[in-house]
Amino acid sequence: MTEYATFLTAAHAAFLRDLFPGDGCVLSPEGLAAFSTDASRERAMPWAVVRPQGRAQVVELLRWADAERMPVYGRARGTGRVGGAVPSLGGVVVSMLRMAGEPVVDADDFVAVVQPGVITADLQAACAAKGLFYPPDPASVRFSTIGGNVATCAGGLRAVKYGVTRDWVLGIEAVLPGGRVLRAGGRSHKDVVGLDLTRLFVGSNGRLGLMTEIIVKLIPLPETSASALVGFADLASSLAGAGAVFRAGVLPSACEFMDQGTLEAVRMGPGGDCIPLAQGARAALLFKLDGTGPGVAAEMDRLIAALAPLGPVSVEVGRGEAEEAVWAVRRSVSPATFRIAPDKLAEDIAVPRGRVAEAVERARRIGQAHGLTVLCFGHLGDGNIHVNIMHDRSQPGVADAAHRAADEIFRLAVELGGTISGEHGTGLTKASFADEQLGRDAVELMRGVRRVFDPHEIMNPGKGW
Amino acid sequence: MTEYATFLTAAHAAFLRDLFPGDGCVLSPEGLAAFSTDASRERAMPWAVVRPQGRAQVVELLRWADAERMPVYGRARGTGRVGGAVPSLGGVVVSMLRMAGEPVVDADDFVAVVQPGVITADLQAACAAKGLFYPPDPASVRFSTIGGNVATCAGGLRAVKYGVTRDWVLGIEAVLPGGRVLRAGGRSHKDVVGLDLTRLFVGSNGRLGLMTEIIVKLIPLPETSASALVGFADLASSLAGAGAVFRAGVLPSACEFMDQGTLEAVRMGPGGDCIPLAQGARAALLFKLDGTGPGVAAEMDRLIAALAPLGPVSVEVGRGEAEEAVWAVRRSVSPATFRIAPDKLAEDIAVPRGRVAEAVERARRIGQAHGLTVLCFGHLGDGNIHVNIMHDRSQPGVADAAHRAADEIFRLAVELGGTISGEHGTGLTKASFADEQLGRDAVELMRGVRRVFDPHEIMNPGKGW
Repeated sequence: MTEYATFLTAAHAAFLRDLFPGDGCVLSPEGLAAFSTDASRERAMPWAVVRPQGRAQVVELLRWADAERMPVYGRARGTGRVGGAVPSLGGVVVSMLRMAGEPVVDADDFVAVVQPGVITADLQAACAAKGLFYPPDPASVRFSTIGGNVATCAGGLRAVKYGVTRDWVLGIEAVLPGGRVLRAGGRSHKDVVGLDLTRLFVGSNGRLGLMTEIIVKLIPLPETSASALVGFADLASSLAGAGAVFRAGVLPSACEFMDQGTLEAVRMGPGGDCIPLAQGARAALLFKLDGTGPGVAAEMDRLIAALAPLGPVSVEVGRGEAEEAVWAVRRSVSPATFRIAPDKLAEDIAVPRGRVAEAVERARRIGQAHGLTVLCFGHLGDGNIHVNIMHDRSQPGVADAAHRAADEIFRLAVELGGTISGEHGTGLTKASFADEQLGRDAVELMRGVRRVFDPHEIMNPGKGW
Repeated sequence: MTEYATFLTAAHAAFLRDLFPGDGCVLSPEGLAAFSTDASRERAMPWAVVRPQGRAQVVELLRWADAERMPVYGRARGTGRVGGAVPSLGGVVVSMLRMAGEPVVDADDFVAVVQPGVITADLQAACAAKGLFYPPDPASVRFSTIGGNVATCAGGLRAVKYGVTRDWVLGIEAVLPGGRVLRAGGRSHKDVVGLDLTRLFVGSNGRLGLMTEIIVKLIPLPETSASALVGFADLASSLAGAGAVFRAGVLPSACEFMDQGTLEAVRMGPGGDCIPLAQGARAALLFKLDGTGPGVAAEMDRLIAALAPLGPVSVEVGRGEAEEAVWAVRRSVSPATFRIAPDKLAEDIAVPRGRVAEAVERARRIGQAHGLTVLCFGHLGDGNIHVNIMHDRSQPGVADAAHRAADEIFRLAVELGGTISGEHGTGLTKASFADEQLGRDAVELMRGVRRVFDPHEIMNPGKGW
């Protein structure tokens, strides 16, 4: 076990101030507080925050941190929901937001070379300006960075057709503890020389090193898209409907699901009575199709025909400017959940696609057994269901009940051949469950691999495996 | 450095005969000879060959081999071109061909669970029978196995649209030296718990362990496809044409290229004067589009319109039963090359897509400087060019000249920001170049990672990194 530094000495502080002049180094308690948490609301105070502007500073920082056994927590916009960026052992938080130069989008090579602090939506916009497409589309795309997306292997809406972040990363440059610089992969769309260290970094949660440059693969921007919001009388028909669409040979670029409770929460909100969904709908599917105009039109026909035998109670197709309207329901879901209860545990289990019905049904019953409402919605197309355990922690015993329900839902996911996290990761809040799911042998292998890059385990320590 | 076993003792032989009864263990020289080589024509005699029928035997084998420091070479159909399966230090070859049970294709989960010895085309057929699609399509698909494809991260024709083998593997079961069993990933389409050991195995060339089960992701089988063979007056227009197609927003499922010398070789063969390509064509592109009928038709219109400004000398579109005819040219390329010279070095460099023109032109000039014909063809869409150095090794000095030309072409690929192998791997024949491309630091990290799984480096030793 590493004997970590236990506080920031005056010499440490002097080193950091020297390496990161001006506001590149934050040491004041009020300045540090902003970096103590992320979207998980877990909290731990770092001893220092630094803001590198280039690779050279990161090299010096990690040479020093390795020698000093200083915990190092990479961070960008802090949109992670599991405390992945929370500095649980104190140490130094490294904000990558100043490494955010203009992405280099190459329309001949079909790649973008991008620094980690660039907002993913900005990268997508830079690509779209040249008729190119970077498909991964996590819900946080307008706020989160490409560095954070790669570190966590972000998923999102379009994964059902286009895969997750992992599938789009061609190369990385990373600085390792001790200051070594690793360049893996590159601008070639194919490369099978050596072990695949590039993808090992994807989803490694800042535990192998700090990425300073990322090369992603691009494809031509689809010409158009269209969407359909489809209401069903019950859960079973909606899930059967999704299966029918896939069996009809249609591969949507999004296939989202909302259960009864979720729809009720949406209807309780402003404008909730004029959403483009029949009142009788107790479950809904939202599909997006992309491609050429004629291709999308043909796929939409097949999709609607495939759903017909399930007797949908409403079908609202959105094309062109009307497309956004059918998405408004889905976008309003996350805030709407708080109309059910003031607090939620938002989990993102994933199960084999054919087990989603069982997972949703059993998750709801687990909630009931604890006297709690469980809302399920999310990325049905890839079996990645966001399970929201709504509760009111101001009531005695309720927070505990919610956590017990979450534990049961995690075990349910594993029992169904799934995983406790489809896309949020495990970070701090699910660290012990991650180790349980993986088993001792796999955890030992992962720690072994980590130590090859980070022998003293200074990178994002305290997060399991 | 491991002190490997240097020969097979009587006790070793007895152990293997006991664990693999009957013809499950091969020890006769004539029996062993068949396992001494692969499509590289490199050769080294193993001391024993075993044919496990299930995981339990593999566990016992690797427990024993680790203790005995016995080199272990996993192998399937031996279609690899770089000696990846050649037992360069002797030891035991493990043929995985008897682990080839019927693939379990699950049309609800959209996954297939498959044993490593299953032929990839058989897996694809089992999927197609249920309207499902496993896209990776290496040229060897009718002969090579899914285990070999995963071990080498096979690429192929459809990678431009669908990615390579890596992008389709959701989970693996592997036996590690010492007999530990690793299960990584699973049937969930999304999973971000822990380090990504699943993809670390993809392309690991049998150097981390022996895979005993593979879970792949499936998508709906496209409804139809159509292809177009397009001739150009010169190399530059053909490469510009490919760029124009991508810029028009069309993402073909294949985008193949053939240069002048390649077309001449094809024309020299039987039926060569009636290929569906204008006589004046000095370069050709071959596109495949897939999707719904109307979608493919619309994309074909856009594709042809995008090419028009480049003035193609012929455009032959193949639809339905006529589609195969336009592919006959491409399929005849590999045997046709031998009409130019009796021997070839077939390399598969990949470069950033925008550098293909320069790569092809300079590769040809490198050949000329050595008095050799270099034929270029292959997967233009992802920058993966098969460079064939034709020569006659019966002439004095010519084999050496061919190897010198290959060395220069490898360095050219790296200079252009590419890689010495897009899909064949580096195995035995390119081991030293692999280490040169990767650099000492990356090689050290890869060896470190290998040792986590295989502390005594018994798995496929003698192949660089």
